[in-house]
Amino acid sequence: MSRNIAKIGNVIIGGNNPVVIQSMTNSNTEEVEETFNQIRDLYHAGSEMVRITVNTDLAARSVVEIKNKMIQHNIDIPLIGCFHYNGHILLQNDDCAQALDKYRINPGNIGGKKENKNYNMNYIIERAIQYNKAVRIGVNWGSLDQHLLLELMDQNNKSPQPKTSQEILHDALIQSAIENANYAHEIGLSKEKIVISCKVSKVNDLVNLYKKLAKMTDYALHVGLTEAGMGLKGIVSTTSALSILLNEGIGNTIRASLTPEAGGDRTEEVKLCKQILQSLAIKKFKPEVTACPGCGRTSNTYFQKLTKEIEDFINDNMPIWQLKYPKVVDLNFAVMGCIVNGPGESKHADIGISLPGNGENPAMPVFIDGKKKYTLRGNNISSKFKEIIIEYIENKYS
Amino acid sequence: MSRNIAKIGNVIIGGNNPVVIQSMTNSNTEEVEETFNQIRDLYHAGSEMVRITVNTDLAARSVVEIKNKMIQHNIDIPLIGCFHYNGHILLQNDDCAQALDKYRINPGNIGGKKENKNYNMNYIIERAIQYNKAVRIGVNWGSLDQHLLLELMDQNNKSPQPKTSQEILHDALIQSAIENANYAHEIGLSKEKIVISCKVSKVNDLVNLYKKLAKMTDYALHVGLTEAGMGLKGIVSTTSALSILLNEGIGNTIRASLTPEAGGDRTEEVKLCKQILQSLAIKKFKPEVTACPGCGRTSNTYFQKLTKEIEDFINDNMPIWQLKYPKVVDLNFAVMGCIVNGPGESKHADIGISLPGNGENPAMPVFIDGKKKYTLRGNNISSKFKEIIIEYIENKYS
Repeated sequence: MSRNIAKIGNVIIGGNNPVVIQSMTNSNTEEVEETFNQIRDLYHAGSEMVRITVNTDLAARSVVEIKNKMIQHNIDIPLIGCFHYNGHILLQNDDCAQALDKYRINPGNIGGKKENKNYNMNYIIERAIQYNKAVRIGVNWGSLDQHLLLELMDQNNKSPQPKTSQEILHDALIQSAIENANYAHEIGLSKEKIVISCKVSKVNDLVNLYKKLAKMTDYALHVGLTEAGMGLKGIVSTTSALSILLNEGIGNTIRASLTPEAGGDRTEEVKLCKQILQSLAIKKFKPEVTACPGCGRTSNTYFQKLTKEIEDFINDNMPIWQLKYPKVVDLNFAVMGCIVNGPGESKHADIGISLPGNGENPAMPVFIDGKKKYTLRGNNISSKFKEIIIEYIENKYS
Repeated sequence: MSRNIAKIGNVIIGGNNPVVIQSMTNSNTEEVEETFNQIRDLYHAGSEMVRITVNTDLAARSVVEIKNKMIQHNIDIPLIGCFHYNGHILLQNDDCAQALDKYRINPGNIGGKKENKNYNMNYIIERAIQYNKAVRIGVNWGSLDQHLLLELMDQNNKSPQPKTSQEILHDALIQSAIENANYAHEIGLSKEKIVISCKVSKVNDLVNLYKKLAKMTDYALHVGLTEAGMGLKGIVSTTSALSILLNEGIGNTIRASLTPEAGGDRTEEVKLCKQILQSLAIKKFKPEVTACPGCGRTSNTYFQKLTKEIEDFINDNMPIWQLKYPKVVDLNFAVMGCIVNGPGESKHADIGISLPGNGENPAMPVFIDGKKKYTLRGNNISSKFKEIIIEYIENKYS
């Protein structure tokens, strides 16, 4: 099913538009300076939209100051407010309602007494219509509308072929997202202002759920593995889930919900999203360095150090290259450790070097555009190879 | 297409057998002590088969000593020899040919003069038949049989609808693997002793190639993204590629070809494979800790520290739990930072704790099997929560 486009501030997602990276601050939104600094870091790391929680009156007032600072500093990306329980109260603040580019609301946490829920939901949607803002209907299995879940379970119990409770849970998540999105549309919010998400924390659940969701609706989809966790577990689970879905064309905005270690760097979640998109060739952010893992044939330390030096060299130069030679992101470099796959892999790269393995002739052929162009020997290989890279880039792109 | 089974030493892959983790040493095989130590480390990290390069006469003689040391230390996993160029010479060493459980050969690097290639290939296969060893026909785009590639390109040029050179390259990789495997089978090697692989270094290429390969053959498949590279790039590219394929049921053995940093830990490649299998719920190795990423609502440092302490607690206890309560790997823990998804996600876990966010009541409900069982307050939350975990595990499994 082709996706609706959705317009969030100056960013358009859905349709044939590229996948967009979202991230979220973990500072207290009431602290304007700290929150702005984090938004700036996330922006510089490559986040294309940033979400902040808006949970108190003071936080709602801070939103305006934060947005003003973003404008002053030319940080021209959508700012999203994340509301739970009291969105209908906090969005009474006109300046806050206007400063945000999107309101994220959670149908399970609209807040207020049961009989007022529709009224509160209406209020938020009407504010979005009034200020031409986007809304994400963001459902999460940690805060699913329990009334809806119980209703579906009761129905299921009476069915001649009852589904598993897992299936009912997924049905409830999907139904909650789509019905609330349709409801928002019925009361006047354009489909171009609606994004939906249904987050769960297990990879297979998320994959199955989104495959089903993508078939059932044409709203733009935000995708992320919620509560992915810490360290390698967080990185691998997020990469697994997003890769499988993105590979099937599912996902218009993505987020990596990594738990940082204490004192950890919040921008890691942006770096991960970039690497996922780059690995799948959906977007390119920097040249790739293909390097072999080394084995009993390779003089390991030397070749590992050279690979690291080339990685660092690219990272250090990217800010300049990006401005001078934006197409540099398409380049592939190879640093290989022996004769087995070294020359072959180097020929597949734009520039590749094949180091001598144990017992091989101590010469290092450099391949440019698939052809052997130089043979390096002796010391300073790293500097010589970097010079070759710079020369290649300048010749190709200037 | 259902996969043939393949028997490698005491390990059976293919059919309905679980996916098996392979790794490879990067020590010089001639150094027996160093190579054995690395095999032991890889084994303890969870590698279920280990490959070593066999590239010289001395390396071939060392294989026997290495295998004997493995037997002495009860490291009962298959040992695979990786041969290029001179396998037909090195496998003349009877002890080496017998000590290995599998010979990995590369049709692009059989070695010897062109007119002897078939003879050399025959010799290796006949040794495998003689000693009842498995063979992997391991093709790599860095060392593809150039004769075959040129032949296919010439054919393609004459075709009325020529394919792209990318497609021809994939065709050549697949054809090289399947034809050589069939050839080995024709001269007498059982299909149960044949594994094939076709490795390339780009995620999308690997995915497309293996989807095609899996439809065209029923040989057991070894899968890995070759030359994945260093750091986050290596981890994410490998996870992307393997997750997409494993999710479609493709892959009987897997390897993560990560480039370690100088002085880096070779077992990282095993840890990554385990995490990929765990994330996709293909195999479980330890309990999972679901943790939210934190946001402006959470008292971050405290909750990040607690999550890390629980992760470390599990890692430290796993060696004992694994022996006493092997089913502990199925458990799910949750450590959540606020009321939004905290209680809900905690109820989905076997044991979950929901910490108070900013401005919330400073009480920490603990949910056991979906029901609120305790409310922790004050200090020593970490110790109390660990006690609850231990009590739960002892009650459930002893």
